[in-house]
Amino acid sequence: MSERFVVIMAGGRGERFWPQSRRNTPKHLLPIVGDEPMLTQTVARVLGVAPKENIFVITTQSQLAGVRAACPALPAGNLVAEPMGRDTAAATGLAMLLVKQRAPGAAFAMLPADHVIHDVAEYQRLLGVAFAAAESDDVLVTIGIKPTTPDTGFGYIRQAGPWKEFDGHWAMAVKRFVEKPSLATAEGYLASGEYFWNAGMFVWRVPVVEAAFKAHAPELYAGLAKVEAAAKSSGTWDAALAALYPTLPKISVDYALMEKSTNVVVVPATFDWDDVGAWPAIAKHFPPDAAGNVLRGLAMVEGGKNNIVVSTDGHLTAVVGADDLVVVHTPDATLVCTKARAQEIKALLKRLEGDAGGKKFL
Amino acid sequence: MSERFVVIMAGGRGERFWPQSRRNTPKHLLPIVGDEPMLTQTVARVLGVAPKENIFVITTQSQLAGVRAACPALPAGNLVAEPMGRDTAAATGLAMLLVKQRAPGAAFAMLPADHVIHDVAEYQRLLGVAFAAAESDDVLVTIGIKPTTPDTGFGYIRQAGPWKEFDGHWAMAVKRFVEKPSLATAEGYLASGEYFWNAGMFVWRVPVVEAAFKAHAPELYAGLAKVEAAAKSSGTWDAALAALYPTLPKISVDYALMEKSTNVVVVPATFDWDDVGAWPAIAKHFPPDAAGNVLRGLAMVEGGKNNIVVSTDGHLTAVVGADDLVVVHTPDATLVCTKARAQEIKALLKRLEGDAGGKKFL
Repeated sequence: MSERFVVIMAGGRGERFWPQSRRNTPKHLLPIVGDEPMLTQTVARVLGVAPKENIFVITTQSQLAGVRAACPALPAGNLVAEPMGRDTAAATGLAMLLVKQRAPGAAFAMLPADHVIHDVAEYQRLLGVAFAAAESDDVLVTIGIKPTTPDTGFGYIRQAGPWKEFDGHWAMAVKRFVEKPSLATAEGYLASGEYFWNAGMFVWRVPVVEAAFKAHAPELYAGLAKVEAAAKSSGTWDAALAALYPTLPKISVDYALMEKSTNVVVVPATFDWDDVGAWPAIAKHFPPDAAGNVLRGLAMVEGGKNNIVVSTDGHLTAVVGADDLVVVHTPDATLVCTKARAQEIKALLKRLEGDAGGKKFL
Repeated sequence: MSERFVVIMAGGRGERFWPQSRRNTPKHLLPIVGDEPMLTQTVARVLGVAPKENIFVITTQSQLAGVRAACPALPAGNLVAEPMGRDTAAATGLAMLLVKQRAPGAAFAMLPADHVIHDVAEYQRLLGVAFAAAESDDVLVTIGIKPTTPDTGFGYIRQAGPWKEFDGHWAMAVKRFVEKPSLATAEGYLASGEYFWNAGMFVWRVPVVEAAFKAHAPELYAGLAKVEAAAKSSGTWDAALAALYPTLPKISVDYALMEKSTNVVVVPATFDWDDVGAWPAIAKHFPPDAAGNVLRGLAMVEGGKNNIVVSTDGHLTAVVGADDLVVVHTPDATLVCTKARAQEIKALLKRLEGDAGGKKFL
């Protein structure tokens, strides 16, 4: 078995869990679910997949200190900061370069930092299957989550029948990647049994993903080659990234590579998985009271149901007579939001961004 | 014109404006509407009616320090604390004794500490009419507010035709005091034009109200006589009240005197008046934004209407996607309440009362 690497993508913007999450402390640096930061839990989960010196974290400059604090197990040199976010294709390219300098032919997994997965044994088993698939052929491997609801918040992966079996688990050929569907379309996907959720988990060998960049994203490929050359000649990443990263095309890895490649396979997964996309999603992870309220910290509900109330630092937060709210108190800012309109937090933060006095709350 | 006195009743329990109001700082000690505590505004409003040495405030022991701070204009000896609340009839008796020791035949007004009245000139003019009425005959005078809505939260006063004219303003005979009506009944009251809101504002001479106690509340009358005797023999109120006040019957002045007396007259009033009974009522007193939201302090609403958001001390409180909420942030406690169910704050406070860790928030 060749050497394996894991690159954890930890570059969230800290919007969806505001006011607990902020720009410098987004969701993966907070214990939104569980007792440790999501990133710390993610690192612990992959320690059985790759040795710690082979685990990288890609983050942004403003979050680097927080990432270091959340990853005491990892070598400091493995925590790499993008000068700014350039979407997931550029981050994938950076991940590729980081692994390539250590082991040019090795396979690596790219994994999100802020998902919840409790069944660690099955997760590690299927990552092993995905690595084996990537090491067996010139393929781009993705782990697809078997959908349980017609969720319109995810992209989907359509399989095209069995490809190869590894340790009794079949990897499937992929017909296509599709973007977030309408509800009717998602219901069709769910009924067909041929679709999986795209959870943003990928495994591939350096030469295979590099070939995909060359074929499907030549401009990005050329930019990455410049970064690689600059880092080699200077001996550090920071100067090369600072100079060249801003010039890389801003595009998602799904759009740049996955939707265009024909050598994609999917490892179907049934372990519990939740990307915890916004405040309403945490309700699944904490025991509710008899009225369906999820209460964290010094939180009370009188005459209301299905609320999520999070109150920190001994502050009392009380909801009276209201249903289906998210209420989050932090020392300097409090959010009161309907569950149904949690996505409008972004509009609020945009207003704060435009306000001289508001910026400090971002 | 004989000497006139005013006794301000400042003994609220601090429940309806929680968490801004607390047991020791109820509504009348807070600038809920306006820039000064409601009590301070009330004192300023009656300084044109009686000289400051003739203005008393009756409060409770736990609020006495706050009352002193809110009434720098009044002699400290005029601020008198009940050992505990014994409802409004006992407080009326105490007011009577306080005035009686100074001027046994004088008229005094009893006024709530926490109402909002902006038209001070008209208010003072009608208080003058009420004093003149009380000084002209053996009558219990009340100021009745001409209703503008079929409010079910007030008691009503039914008039029985003109009684006497004072300075061009007619005082009306009273047929009866009625308790809070149903909506249908209140609509009838409003349509008839014969009813006024009972705003808890009374003017009477000491001997007249004393006779009413003797006739309609003999047990309370006897208790008050004991308090009077004990205070005379000891020379102070505190010991007499501590010993005897707890023995006084707990009953409202409406029920003990007003509903039973036949010598009641009402001075109809059309000045602006609001008892600001609970959080939703403050919306009338502050300019709303274009979506009907009332924002106080560092408060924001994104995609929601008709909310009241009060945030103190530089803390940001943001409402997203919700309508018709009251959100109040204070340094140690935050309330989120639907406007429609603001009365359920009391149930919340009852739960806090029963909880070892909750008492400190009362």
